[in-house]
This record gives sequence, structure tokens and C-alpha cells, in this order.
Amino acid sequence: MPNHTADVLVASYLEQDLVERIARCDPRVRVSYAPELLPRPRWHSDHVGVPRELTAGEHDRWTSMLQTAEVMFDFDWRRPERTLEQSPSLKWIQATSAGAGQLIERFGLSYAPLTVTTAAGVHAGPLAEFALAGILHFARGLPRLIDDRQNRTWRKQHTTELAGSHALVVGAGKIGKRTAELLRHFSVTSTGVARNPRSESAPFDIMTTTERIPEYLPTADILVISCALTDATRGLIGRRELDALPYGALVVNIGRGSIIDEEALAEGLASARLGGAVLDVTSTEPLEDDSPLWTVENVILSPHSAANVPSENGKIVDLFIENLERHLSGDALINEFDFDAGY
Amino acid sequence: MPNHTADVLVASYLEQDLVERIARCDPRVRVSYAPELLPRPRWHSDHVGVPRELTAGEHDRWTSMLQTAEVMFDFDWRRPERTLEQSPSLKWIQATSAGAGQLIERFGLSYAPLTVTTAAGVHAGPLAEFALAGILHFARGLPRLIDDRQNRTWRKQHTTELAGSHALVVGAGKIGKRTAELLRHFSVTSTGVARNPRSESAPFDIMTTTERIPEYLPTADILVISCALTDATRGLIGRRELDALPYGALVVNIGRGSIIDEEALAEGLASARLGGAVLDVTSTEPLEDDSPLWTVENVILSPHSAANVPSENGKIVDLFIENLERHLSGDALINEFDFDAGY
Repeated sequence: MPNHTADVLVASYLEQDLVERIARCDPRVRVSYAPELLPRPRWHSDHVGVPRELTAGEHDRWTSMLQTAEVMFDFDWRRPERTLEQSPSLKWIQATSAGAGQLIERFGLSYAPLTVTTAAGVHAGPLAEFALAGILHFARGLPRLIDDRQNRTWRKQHTTELAGSHALVVGAGKIGKRTAELLRHFSVTSTGVARNPRSESAPFDIMTTTERIPEYLPTADILVISCALTDATRGLIGRRELDALPYGALVVNIGRGSIIDEEALAEGLASARLGGAVLDVTSTEPLEDDSPLWTVENVILSPHSAANVPSENGKIVDLFIENLERHLSGDALINEFDFDAGY
Repeated sequence: MPNHTADVLVASYLEQDLVERIARCDPRVRVSYAPELLPRPRWHSDHVGVPRELTAGEHDRWTSMLQTAEVMFDFDWRRPERTLEQSPSLKWIQATSAGAGQLIERFGLSYAPLTVTTAAGVHAGPLAEFALAGILHFARGLPRLIDDRQNRTWRKQHTTELAGSHALVVGAGKIGKRTAELLRHFSVTSTGVARNPRSESAPFDIMTTTERIPEYLPTADILVISCALTDATRGLIGRRELDALPYGALVVNIGRGSIIDEEALAEGLASARLGGAVLDVTSTEPLEDDSPLWTVENVILSPHSAANVPSENGKIVDLFIENLERHLSGDALINEFDFDAGY
């Protein structure tokens, strides 16, 4: 059913030129944006930011902006658990992250009578770049080169190459696909894991299901976790799974920390049975002070910021504008969150 | 003119199965191989090795093997400067390195009445992998992540991405092309520099000539040196050229050290005007003890071994066998060294 207007509330900080792009994309769109009522971003494309203390007057202004919103760009930062009552006209929230399941649950919006769309796809490029940076770091022996330079040692010997390896990519969404695509250009074959594999496998060489992961682990020189955190994936890669990887295997996590047993991962690295870990996420963030992942050898640790690149907001706005046009035409939106699947 | 036989002397260490592949490739091929008379390799595909002390008898055996050789796989390790007199039937030497100009000059074989073919192309894959490993290391801020982990600091902020950068690739041979091809998959455009650019530019977006490098330097977020060392390229990238690069540019050298002014490079890194250097080669190897490249920030230094991967010998033998067939048929060989061009 087409919508005749769209009252859009931009609910997290956005650069002025991007707000104007939204406002100008269609005459039926009306945009409300008051950056002075929003958390201050700490870096480019930060969608959490430093919360504000609002005066009573500001509080009322924000409440009335929420009151009329039909569409929100990002969740309410102040009282998201009251979304349904404080925004009675709300039909749709465009989230700014790829994985929105945990937020939706925390805000009590599971199966709520509104549409949530995620920013899935926007982060695929930077996350896959990060994965490749980490994979090449270990596959090409950069830790040894860095150590040797520090020790002023010129140690000529043969080196390892990435070409010819095989990767198991758990999560065949946009992030997993982009990673497999880049790996393929380096002559690395891959098996993609999906809940419901399609017949078309590219860019993967093989597609399989979650249940069959154990069969594929022994061939995985590189294990990439790029799936959402759901009841089905929490703890999916435990000690047994890590032990089944070949000697020297690399583990990449660009999904969510709780998918991997971090204690078993740290032990595999400490014993050098695993060749390296490339982590953008950890089960607790920030990582606990006593985690062995701070000190064990051969870890690249990123504070869940590999996707936070300056180009991020522009890409989310591209997606949002495309969705706004669809919303106005009554067409299905891109990236609709599926409450049953949990992503 | 076809050759009816080929007496092949394998003059550097080669795995037995690879020697057998050469011996079996054509009934007209006769292979001599005596690993006990050759330098011991120090690593996979090492073509220099530890020289042997030969007994008088061994010395005579080696001399007589050289005497009958029509084709040599690699140069004589013992007295290469006497090649023409000690191997009067020699028609062709297959070198095992991509850049053979300096060896040919040192051995007095410039314009000698024989053909030298290089192993150009064999090293393109591993060298381009190394280039990308180093480029991604700096482009994705790995030095900061490594430092932060060492200091147990969880510092969330936006990160940089590689996509959208532009590379200037000096040397549009196989190594430069493979590097540009990989960069292109990361959405990095490139300008290729060749002495005589062809009309077909792929995988480069633009082709230009050595003379026009200065025009392109200000656009080069990444400068890749992948050309041979010749009189025309020695010192090609001096202080002026490095100063013309944009702030934070990365410099990659997978060609030869003497092409870059290393003192100016180290100064650019020390002042952080340059964002990083990725070096597989240096002007003196091993690097001099007092070189600032040991200590200046943001250098990945590899001891000219990025191409020494275990698969190297197999690929050189593939090329050699293809050339042997051509030699027997009287066809032009692949990778003939051009004494005029110097590569």
C-alpha cells in the first residue's frame, strides 16, 4: 500500500549534506533533524555517541518530534524501550547496523507492529578488507618480519603464500560473500555455510548447511565467522570445532564474539596449533581485562570498529533513500529484519 | 631452427620429482643432475644456497657436465664468469629469477652468443600478495591495533579503508599487473607506468610513461615500484618524487632497492609525511646496520624473500618445460632477456 507522505525523524547524528540528500529525495518526504538533541558522535559514522543531558524544554521538543514520526532513521537513543507508545504513527525504523537482533530484543521490539530494516551490506566492504588484512598478515608471515626488524635481524628464508588455501565461511550473507569474493581473487577456494543454501553458490565453490560444518572443518585453512548472533549460532564454534581445524589454521571473526569459545581459541593460539586470530568482535566489549586475548601470540584485535569508516554514513543514506522510495510506493523494503530468523 | 636434442644440465638444487618432470617431458631431452655437486639450499626454492667445497674428482665431474650442456637450468654456481669457455655447446640458460640483468652483467654475459630466459611471471603471485599484505596493514591501521593490544587499550574510533584509493604502479610487467589486478578488486584504481605503454591498459585504468611520473605522483595514495633495475630506473624515485606524493601515502618496493632514495624515504616516514613503506628489497642486502629503515616507524621490511614460496620451483619448472618444447621446435622462447633493454 503506497504512503502519501513520510514524516522522517533522523534520530542519530548525520552530516548536514546527507540530511539534505534525504530531504530532497522526494517531495513527499518531510525531515526532522535536531542534532543538538542527539548524542555527540565520537568518530565518523558513530551511531551511539555520548548521550546528552536534555533540559526540560529539550526533552519536550524531542518527545514531540518522536510523536509525529512515521519513519525513523535509527532507534530513539533516549528511551527506545518506549518506542511504540511515544511514536504512535511509526511504521518503520531504518537501523544503522547490519546486526540489529540484539538491539531489537533489548528494546522490546520483537514482533512489534512495525518494520525494521537493517544496514546489512553497507559494512561488507570494510569488514572484508579487514578480514583480508588480517589473513594476509598471518599468511604472509608479517609477525616474523616485524619481530626480525625489531631485533635488526635479516633472516632470509622461504615464506608462505595465501594462494591455494581453502576457507570455510560461516555466514553467507553480504559480509561473508564479499570476503569469499576477495579470497577467490587471491586463488583461495571457499565453502559457504548458510541455513538454507541456494543452488547458486558463487562466490563460494561449495555451499553447505550449519549442520555439516564438522565435515568441512578439517579442510579449513581459514575459518571466517560472518554470521549473525542467534540462538542457533551462539557458541557454534566451540573447542571441538577449533580442534578439528588443520594445524596452523587462521580464525577470523567479523560476526559476533559469542559465536566462538574464546577460551578455547586463546588456548589454540597459545599452543600455536592455530596460526592466528583476526577479531573485530569479542564476546564482551570492551574485552575483559583478564582475557588471554590481550596477551596470547598472533592476535589482531579490533575494537568492533572495522566497519566504522568515513564512507559508512553515505552508504547507509543511499540505502535509506532507496528504501524511502519503496516505502512511498508501497514496495517491499530492502533488508527487512525477520523476527523469526533473528536477522 | 628446431633442435634435435637437448642436453639439459640442472645447475641448481631442484626437488627430485621436478627433475623427473623435466626428464620425461620429451624423449629428446637428456637431463644431467648431480645435487651432491651443487650448493645446499637453505630454504625451499633457494637458488643460491651454501657453496660446496668440491674434491678434485667432483670438480672434474662438474666440469665435464658443463662441457656437454646445451641448455642450463640456472647459471653455473662455481665459475659463471667462464660460462662461454667451459660450456662450448651451450645455447640457452634458463634463469630462476625474474630480474637477471645484474647477474648477466656480473658474469660477463652481456651480448653473449646465447639466449638467457628469465623466470619473470613466476614471482608475480607471491610478490603481489606481499604488496597487498603490506598495503592493507597500513591502510587498515593494523599498527595502531597492534600497539593498542600491547597496551591493553580498547580504543574505538573510526578506521580507514583501502577502497577508493589510487595507486601509481611503476613497472607494468607481470608483477605490477598482478598487483594492480588485486588492487582493482579492492576498488583501488591505478595508473601503470611503462617505457612503451600499449594501447590496452587493463588491469590499469590509465597507462603512462616514465617521463610523465611527476604529473601522477600527487594522485598516488600508493606508489608501487615493480620495475627492473636499469640505468633508467636507478634512483628514479628520489626526494623530489617522494615529496610530491600526497600526505600519508604508502610506498611499496617489490622491484629493486636502488630505485628509491632510501634516505629520503626514511625521512618521509620519520616525519609521518609518508604513511608507511612496504619493502621486499633494499639498496644493499642485507640492509646496512646503520640504516634508519631498521628503526623508523611504519616499515614492513622483508629480506628479499617475499617471492621465495614453496610453490616457486614447480612454477619455474612449468615455464622451463614450456620453453624446452619451444627450444626443440625452434620457436621463440618465453621471457627472453633483452640485452638492449636490460630486462
